[in-house]
Amino acid sequence: MLQLYDYLESGNGYKVRLLLTQLGIPFERVELDILKGETRTREFLAKNPNGRIPLLELPDGTTLAESNAIQWYLAEGTRFLPEDRLGRAQVLQWMAFEQYSHEPFVAVLRFWHHAGTLAAHSEEEIAAKRSGGEAGLGVMERHLGQRPFFVGECYSIADIALYAYTHVAEEGGFELASYPAVRAWLERVRSQPGYVPITERVG
Amino acid sequence: MLQLYDYLESGNGYKVRLLLTQLGIPFERVELDILKGETRTREFLAKNPNGRIPLLELPDGTTLAESNAIQWYLAEGTRFLPEDRLGRAQVLQWMAFEQYSHEPFVAVLRFWHHAGTLAAHSEEEIAAKRSGGEAGLGVMERHLGQRPFFVGECYSIADIALYAYTHVAEEGGFELASYPAVRAWLERVRSQPGYVPITERVG
Repeated sequence: MLQLYDYLESGNGYKVRLLLTQLGIPFERVELDILKGETRTREFLAKNPNGRIPLLELPDGTTLAESNAIQWYLAEGTRFLPEDRLGRAQVLQWMAFEQYSHEPFVAVLRFWHHAGTLAAHSEEEIAAKRSGGEAGLGVMERHLGQRPFFVGECYSIADIALYAYTHVAEEGGFELASYPAVRAWLERVRSQPGYVPITERVG
Repeated sequence: MLQLYDYLESGNGYKVRLLLTQLGIPFERVELDILKGETRTREFLAKNPNGRIPLLELPDGTTLAESNAIQWYLAEGTRFLPEDRLGRAQVLQWMAFEQYSHEPFVAVLRFWHHAGTLAAHSEEEIAAKRSGGEAGLGVMERHLGQRPFFVGECYSIADIALYAYTHVAEEGGFELASYPAVRAWLERVRSQPGYVPITERVG
């Protein structure tokens, strides 16, 4: 059986967990508490030298890291990934956008709130995170104003990747009131078959 | 003809430029000076709402952003991307690693040096960038100590993605002396057919 090294509150872990559940693929979840350094142990670093969850372990012991790469691996040949070359590249474009222009702001502010470390950061640093996050949400709003999902007309792993931290952005202090197209899209994602919330212990 | 919106010193632009050259695909390069705000004009934001180069424009006007997504689009079906599902996912894993655990440190310190803005950042901020970059280089060193290229036995777009900023890491103050496997790999990349240096105006 597939093993998913994961941390329940992690949006990056949730991306994989949600996809596995929607694909109906059985898996076993191994919870590692990142706040207690459980992803930096010698044992885990032997599995992922970059010391991060999520990590997928295949039945033969092969490991695959990075949420978007794991999603791609699982989604190839399924309805979660377009068949045409341009569509696939557009999925990767939005997953790269999420990773570089969204997660480092939206997810990190939420993490600082959750970990109780917000006060350790300067006002300037927090303002920079907020402004980066608003810029990312603005790009999403303009794109979703004209279409139901990120790529083509269908729900794909690009939507899962961007949903993971957007739907809990308010936990990092972001207000979604001024992003109506984003909010409508969040509802569309939530209504997909097999949807499970981030805090549900699946697998 | 393909148009590549690009900035000569950008490693992200170079990833695409190098691949196009090695694939022998003709393209026209459109230079935009990011230091002068040329990627934030109304005209360019209409092409890429995220305001970043590289951006690939297809002959029909379709645009594709994000260096790794553009590389994937160009590499599908070529020798620069493995044929097996796991190999492809591993390529994406290393491209995601580059984007999240390497570029934000190694590329950003180089950019601060080039843009002359290093002094505007605190010692603490610079030290955090340096330490993140060393961690990334350490992960690369351990991986390359056992194999010639990042995925399988072959040069792929994962190598191009990681080469782009690693080979100029010293311009950001990183010393590569203590990374012998990385240095040997840099030489292997440089000896690939069709190699062009980052500062060469191709296309």
